[in-house]
Amino acid sequence: MAEIFPSRRVRKTPFSAGVEAAGVKGYTVYNHMLLPTVFESVEFDAAHLKQHVQVWDVSCERQVSIKGPDALRLMKLISPRDMDRMADDQCYYVPAVDQNGGMLNDPVSIKLATDHYWLSLADGDLLQFALGIAISKGFDVDIVEPDVSPLGVQGPKADDLMARVFGDAVRDIRFFRYKRLAFQGQEFVVARSGWSKQGGFEIYVEGTENGMPLWDALFDAGQDLNVRAGCPNQVERVESGLLSYGSDMRRENTPIECGLGKFCNSPENYIGKSALEAQLRDGPDRMIRAVAIEGETGMCSDVWPMFADGKQVGQVASAIWSPEFQTTVAIGMVDRTHWDAGTVTEVETSNGMRRATVQKSFWR
Amino acid sequence: MAEIFPSRRVRKTPFSAGVEAAGVKGYTVYNHMLLPTVFESVEFDAAHLKQHVQVWDVSCERQVSIKGPDALRLMKLISPRDMDRMADDQCYYVPAVDQNGGMLNDPVSIKLATDHYWLSLADGDLLQFALGIAISKGFDVDIVEPDVSPLGVQGPKADDLMARVFGDAVRDIRFFRYKRLAFQGQEFVVARSGWSKQGGFEIYVEGTENGMPLWDALFDAGQDLNVRAGCPNQVERVESGLLSYGSDMRRENTPIECGLGKFCNSPENYIGKSALEAQLRDGPDRMIRAVAIEGETGMCSDVWPMFADGKQVGQVASAIWSPEFQTTVAIGMVDRTHWDAGTVTEVETSNGMRRATVQKSFWR
Repeated sequence: MAEIFPSRRVRKTPFSAGVEAAGVKGYTVYNHMLLPTVFESVEFDAAHLKQHVQVWDVSCERQVSIKGPDALRLMKLISPRDMDRMADDQCYYVPAVDQNGGMLNDPVSIKLATDHYWLSLADGDLLQFALGIAISKGFDVDIVEPDVSPLGVQGPKADDLMARVFGDAVRDIRFFRYKRLAFQGQEFVVARSGWSKQGGFEIYVEGTENGMPLWDALFDAGQDLNVRAGCPNQVERVESGLLSYGSDMRRENTPIECGLGKFCNSPENYIGKSALEAQLRDGPDRMIRAVAIEGETGMCSDVWPMFADGKQVGQVASAIWSPEFQTTVAIGMVDRTHWDAGTVTEVETSNGMRRATVQKSFWR
Repeated sequence: MAEIFPSRRVRKTPFSAGVEAAGVKGYTVYNHMLLPTVFESVEFDAAHLKQHVQVWDVSCERQVSIKGPDALRLMKLISPRDMDRMADDQCYYVPAVDQNGGMLNDPVSIKLATDHYWLSLADGDLLQFALGIAISKGFDVDIVEPDVSPLGVQGPKADDLMARVFGDAVRDIRFFRYKRLAFQGQEFVVARSGWSKQGGFEIYVEGTENGMPLWDALFDAGQDLNVRAGCPNQVERVESGLLSYGSDMRRENTPIECGLGKFCNSPENYIGKSALEAQLRDGPDRMIRAVAIEGETGMCSDVWPMFADGKQVGQVASAIWSPEFQTTVAIGMVDRTHWDAGTVTEVETSNGMRRATVQKSFWR
């Protein structure tokens, strides 16, 4: 592949100086912003993540700030999830859909106050959906993208590193809950969350100027913990079954197809409700499945069709060799007829047709 | 900069095989899709574009298809421009804004039928804005991203090349008008438009499978015209004053600040109308200006502040050395106090503070 070409439209982040000094080797673009994809190698980065602790520049998880008297009314239209059950310190995974149940994004919503929410976005300008609704309904809300850039701290030593910088209070933060914690006179939302299954936190850094001081503090404090710069890791996230909006799921998919039906429980008349309730009742025709593909296939950077008896029965949109599990791990969208665990299919990879077996669950 | 990392989320295009065979050296990402940025060098590409003809993969100008009985009602809410004056074969530049007049995108709208429009997007998911409005208003429209990928043919020899592939009818297409023209049993919208001032066309290629046959046909037909693969060129577009949404203008800007006030003439009650009419009446506090910066500064990949008497009076978001005009050409957003032609300021570039003079107009 060619090099990426910088511009104001493809923004650097508050942590870019640190990322570049750490020797980033690859980027992708996510919400009009640079997102590192590899430092040493994807395999090395994965192995390190599973043993130590990494600091991730995930600034590209841009926030949509929805603030004002009608903030909750708007959230109740956008969220298939019951917003009234959300605790004051909670982070809520919200698969937002259109009127037909087609996924538009899968942000994490953070309740800052009863009249103030952030939506921490996957790749896509959901801000414009919220804005279109709010303007049309005449809602009294401000909808902006604030100067907030999440920094991930992920890995088994994340609690230890974070405690050194933010104090032992971080150890008491429950999964998908947050506390406001102090750093050098600032106060940041610190949540136990992140796009790995190695444990860790996301710090919602307010103010670009606070980015590098925090980055440096984490590295200074973590030398003996073997802290490294990292990023969402393709090996670890596929093993873990963490879905990527835009790759594994898109507007042509419903949350139910993606295994997210449990998040569609709102009693409110949210957008897409009738479509999702019908599918919850009848069951979807296809669903996300873990798929093990034989041998090394190279990385999947497009869509690979899945076949059985010469007929297409699904597709794979993420796949990569797993050194830990000694197979190519993959995320497939598989038809009902072939989604049972143990079903053997074939996937047309970049390296030719390969035997592929549907798994009971992801690898962790 | 590091390499770009491919995934399904950062899509290849119907023309990617041709682009890669032509030796693309740089990419950016635009609407979740790869956009080439350089082939030989930006300077070489610019000089060639001004003399010959280039084929541009601008698939990333994704279309929002708005179709149905309420399509025009929706367009009239989104467009500051008078949709009733739009001819049946017209392409309409539409600076879409929020309720405060802040720009959300600046698509080209194409009228395919009285109940069917495409919006050919700048970088940003305006589809979600249109969808949020349509759902909230209960409009009877389908809003989708169709399998349509624009291919640009730009340069002084564009008419000759296009006539060889589509027939002499292309010569009669007026500026920002289109015809439906046949190619190998397909029919494509062919418009006289494109993101250069060297003249040319955009072919709205429907069907991914039709991409490479058309690409190949253009190269076969254009050998003696010295046809090359090209892309929107930073030198030529800054010289020409073609604004980039996300760089030169954003949601914090109004169309009037961007010199697009003449497109804000709709008699309908469109979104943002009162804010834009107030600014049209009172005049904006800052506006886009051509700025000549002394010497070579390197390419502007962020924002450079502009100063006079120690105070910030504007900023530059696009700048690059122009071999033709022997100056660094730049696009600035300049305060009213300093926007008159001939005003001398200083711009803080990557290469230090430089003398910068506001120009009467862009270089072409």
